[in-house]
Amino acid sequence: MKPELIGKQIPVLDKGFVELQDMMGDDLAIVNAARTSFLGESKGGDKDKKLLFYLMEHHHDGPFEFVQFRFRIKAPIMIWWQFVRHRTMSYNLQSGRYVEYDENEFYIPETWRLQAKSNKQGSDGVLVDAVELTALLEEHYNKSYALYEQALAQGVAREQARLFLPAFAAYHTGCVSVDARNLLHFLKLRTAPDAQWEIRQVALAIQEIVKEGLPWTFEAYQKFHLGVSQP
Amino acid sequence: MKPELIGKQIPVLDKGFVELQDMMGDDLAIVNAARTSFLGESKGGDKDKKLLFYLMEHHHDGPFEFVQFRFRIKAPIMIWWQFVRHRTMSYNLQSGRYVEYDENEFYIPETWRLQAKSNKQGSDGVLVDAVELTALLEEHYNKSYALYEQALAQGVAREQARLFLPAFAAYHTGCVSVDARNLLHFLKLRTAPDAQWEIRQVALAIQEIVKEGLPWTFEAYQKFHLGVSQP
Amino acid sequence: MKPELIGKQIPVLDKGFVELQDMMGDDLAIVNAARTSFLGESKGGDKDKKLLFYLMEHHHDGPFEFVQFRFRIKAPIMIWWQFVRHRTMSYNLQSGRYVEYDENEFYIPETWRLQAKSNKQGSDGVLVDAVELTALLEEHYNKSYALYEQALAQGVAREQARLFLPAFAAYHTGCVSVDARNLLHFLKLRTAPDAQWEIRQVALAIQEIVKEGLPWTFEAYQKFHLGVSQP
Amino acid sequence: MKPELIGKQIPVLDKGFVELQDMMGDDLAIVNAARTSFLGESKGGDKDKKLLFYLMEHHHDGPFEFVQFRFRIKAPIMIWWQFVRHRTMSYNLQSGRYVEYDENEFYIPETWRLQAKSNKQGSDGVLVDAVELTALLEEHYNKSYALYEQALAQGVAREQARLFLPAFAAYHTGCVSVDARNLLHFLKLRTAPDAQWEIRQVALAIQEIVKEGLPWTFEAYQKFHLGVSQP
Repeated sequence: MKPELIGKQIPVLDKGFVELQDMMGDDLAIVNAARTSFLGESKGGDKDKKLLFYLMEHHHDGPFEFVQFRFRIKAPIMIWWQFVRHRTMSYNLQSGRYVEYDENEFYIPETWRLQAKSNKQGSDGVLVDAVELTALLEEHYNKSYALYEQALAQGVAREQARLFLPAFAAYHTGCVSVDARNLLHFLKLRTAPDAQWEIRQVALAIQEIVKEGLPWTFEAYQKFHLGVSQP
Repeated sequence: MKPELIGKQIPVLDKGFVELQDMMGDDLAIVNAARTSFLGESKGGDKDKKLLFYLMEHHHDGPFEFVQFRFRIKAPIMIWWQFVRHRTMSYNLQSGRYVEYDENEFYIPETWRLQAKSNKQGSDGVLVDAVELTALLEEHYNKSYALYEQALAQGVAREQARLFLPAFAAYHTGCVSVDARNLLHFLKLRTAPDAQWEIRQVALAIQEIVKEGLPWTFEAYQKFHLGVSQP
Repeated sequence: MKPELIGKQIPVLDKGFVELQDMMGDDLAIVNAARTSFLGESKGGDKDKKLLFYLMEHHHDGPFEFVQFRFRIKAPIMIWWQFVRHRTMSYNLQSGRYVEYDENEFYIPETWRLQAKSNKQGSDGVLVDAVELTALLEEHYNKSYALYEQALAQGVAREQARLFLPAFAAYHTGCVSVDARNLLHFLKLRTAPDAQWEIRQVALAIQEIVKEGLPWTFEAYQKFHLGVSQP
Repeated sequence: MKPELIGKQIPVLDKGFVELQDMMGDDLAIVNAARTSFLGESKGGDKDKKLLFYLMEHHHDGPFEFVQFRFRIKAPIMIWWQFVRHRTMSYNLQSGRYVEYDENEFYIPETWRLQAKSNKQGSDGVLVDAVELTALLEEHYNKSYALYEQALAQGVAREQARLFLPAFAAYHTGCVSVDARNLLHFLKLRTAPDAQWEIRQVALAIQEIVKEGLPWTFEAYQKFHLGVSQP
């Protein structure tokens, strides 16, 4: 583990971030977990790296569970809504029942993407004249938040007043703990071209950290799962 | 399993429901799974029920995993947001990237609950004069939806146009598959007094089905986990 | 679900079996779970099958979790030892602490496989003159069991007396509940050529049941995961 | 995390051990994960400890998932057979298909426990005159191992030759990665009086490490889950 990596924070979207809070293990921890199968230990650089590549190529995924990451992530619910569907991670998220939403913590996209014709699910190209729609969005956020505050002022419970909010845009901060095996699976799905652009930004920030923290693992993952050859 | 229970649908909130789509096993399946430990089989009524109660009382939870439920549930995101945090269930949910939201499918609460003073998380009592706030909510839903449609009309992708929507209120239909052990754990947490009222309604509807489908199990669960004695 | 499939029992090895005790759902249940994403339902034969194949091809694995199987399996510990490492299934197994082992319930292989030279893990070819070694094995089982009984006769606890037993050979009966997604993953790993021959026999018996219970799913699995084309 | 704790190895039974290989997080990591819910951070000693006790008392178990342990454990299969049934841990174990068993690596109990009369599952009291039975066991291990070697000498595959071995006694080394929440659940079940004595020794060694690595958590666990008050 590289101590200097702990605490690294990468900005995401207009107000979010991905931060590595802690990490357990490194590429060698994966190699050593694998060598347990035949009672061996690290044999030094080249053989270790070769073994790790072998594991990745042949889907011997178990040893990659012996590295653990803990992230603090700030992202709009639109992203969390997709994120928390990954059931092999641990989550603890800011609660809209405990704390009031902050009027400045809503996501405003830089560009508006157009609906893809060929793909029911995705987007393709951007809206040329986006200023007006963005202005409408900001105005809508302000009005929504004012109604939220009005409900709170009347004594309405936070858990119910939030019905007024444009919730997909509401930033939430949360902790995520996950092992390298399941994190790579997340990255594969969420950096893919058919993933929503917003969650791709989070996934790419996480990927940057994984690349630095587990250089061999990431190289092997690119080679065998993404089909990217190193030069 | 009671065939007549399959297809049962219980209305929840203003526009939602809980429907049992399918079920595998019954109280006896749990008893027989447990008897595998000592290579036995069902011994008939009284002894079987006694064994099931013993399992529940002493937290021998494994055998309860051998009954499976599949539900179709329609509920606002506010509820799903809490529901999907239960990582031991299988989910497939309506996608806001694939399909347009329907203007009539937003949750309007019957009453407005007041913020509890003693409990940061919950609600306590109801707003007496609620008509005006409800009217504001409906108006807000309409305006939000009009903006959503405007963005779609400009060609904006569904996945992004939904930023305009009051998402916590948006109804989504989804499938849930879960075994009895993990379902009882869900029920315990989500029928509790400190659970949000809206998810309690879903949990109580599910509970009604469990009670009918697994009468011994439910009686034992009430006795040992909820402290309710049968008369 | 085909009711006539319930109760089907397939013999495995010299004394074991795989039995389908119950099943929830069929190919159409998978299709309908998938159609929840876009609020649709079954469209009839061809389109449904095409969708199911699309799901399998593009690794949209979620909907396959909505079919559930419950098996009763009798197999030696050698097999269970590998089986229970699949953490996405529910298990309840005969306990050697509760019940005495039966002297007739130990696995005797039909052939002795030779250690593969090229593959540290596997076997390759069979021992030509196997009669003598098999006789030694049977004799060894008898002596081991006699010592087990002697320890029990002295009052030693079952949980400790079993140290005398050739445990890898000891048959245990157990229940397994698993969804179709995770069962296919098990089948892929455990019917592969590098899986131990004994667990392959169990996996092949399970596969026979899956093929009958989920014909479209199995055809798609063969096509996209095993590379077998239908004629 | 206490760096001096990493590498601590505690002997277990006659030839086994529990070793802490790595650890991520400490009591404060749990507190900080919990405070994410209301966007707060550590408030310093007393308030932090009070919050942690509150979490434990009220079964808010999520935050305890943000501490991770990686152990290397050497134990006979008798113990692993029970251990690996905990499906919320990651395992990588020495393989009897890859490597030959070592003739010196079989468990010999110090005492022979008697079968409990009142409890079908457990033991109660010890065999007074144990020397003879232990001698029989050692002799049996030697004969079994000689047969194993004979089969190997004839070219039989390791995976099959092991049928001759007293497998419950065979030591295996393995890696285990687990978060604090699921580890405490393991400890509760496996240090209990009805757990088999052998796995209790492993659980007690793990407990010693948890107590040192997470002193507040362990104190709270004792207080609320074991009913032990601190003096």
